[in-house]
Amino acid sequence: MQLTLKPEVLSAESFAPFGELVSVRGKPIMINNGTTERYHNLGQVTLGNSEQMGQGILSIFRAQPRTLPMTINMMERHPLGSQAFLPSSAEPYLVLVCLSHQVNGEEQPDPNSLKLFLASGDEGVNYKANCWHHPLLALNQVSDFWIVDRIGPGNNLEEFFFPDDWEIVIDL
Amino acid sequence: MQLTLKPEVLSAESFAPFGELVSVRGKPIMINNGTTERYHNLGQVTLGNSEQMGQGILSIFRAQPRTLPMTINMMERHPLGSQAFLPSSAEPYLVLVCLSHQVNGEEQPDPNSLKLFLASGDEGVNYKANCWHHPLLALNQVSDFWIVDRIGPGNNLEEFFFPDDWEIVIDL
Repeated sequence: MQLTLKPEVLSAESFAPFGELVSVRGKPIMINNGTTERYHNLGQVTLGNSEQMGQGILSIFRAQPRTLPMTINMMERHPLGSQAFLPSSAEPYLVLVCLSHQVNGEEQPDPNSLKLFLASGDEGVNYKANCWHHPLLALNQVSDFWIVDRIGPGNNLEEFFFPDDWEIVIDL
Repeated sequence: MQLTLKPEVLSAESFAPFGELVSVRGKPIMINNGTTERYHNLGQVTLGNSEQMGQGILSIFRAQPRTLPMTINMMERHPLGSQAFLPSSAEPYLVLVCLSHQVNGEEQPDPNSLKLFLASGDEGVNYKANCWHHPLLALNQVSDFWIVDRIGPGNNLEEFFFPDDWEIVIDL
């Protein structure tokens, strides 16, 4: 497996298989006596199932910038909850996601479905529960993100490390 | 009732009666192979009770800037869920909150407990369920905020309009 990935155009439609794009679009609802536009319900916070319901929490991630080209050697996912990345620093960042497939009965990231998106600093992404994604990929400088995700019972982290002979590279 | 309110220093402690300050502080957890600092669980998303459980959602508010001094004539609260305001524009904004008291058996904002805070563009606030607060008070220019709040069954909005002879003014 040898792949070089370049960013594709990020849109609500292109990101839909992986979660929701959180960005200003469509017609807002006017609130607060006409002083505020509400772009309503752009993403949903999911917290588990009836047996393993969690708690939604707010955190901040401060990410070191990456140097490109960069070799990707793993993906992760959160089976029980969504995870939103909402830029605080107005800096662009990369979003690497893929679909899942079964290999010998095990769920793994499907490398042929890998998508790299370049998000601008006013675009957030909300990964669906169970969406394979790469850890945060800041660019240019140290970048802060508001994070909306889940704590609670059950295992909410799966990691998959690619075989050593796979060479998956991302670049702008 | 005549009051002029000036901003106080915003801190996790001073804001605690009203909710959580969402800001970089304390010791982070290192994640993502050492590339990211996680400032963990700075605020909790609450969604109701067992009879009226709601859904957490992500929205964007785009707020017009206010002109100061400004007369305040109402407060509102959300009985069933928290509401977080996380700046996207890195612009400062004002946060006006107060405690509740009973007047003739009715819950009302207690004007003597009003607190005005100046939040910087890298500080978010998460109002507790039932915290009286003024609608978003942007300053300087049109400002965007990531919003984390609730949809679902039940009435999640209460508004209280001050009597005409109350003069409550905010100013920097």
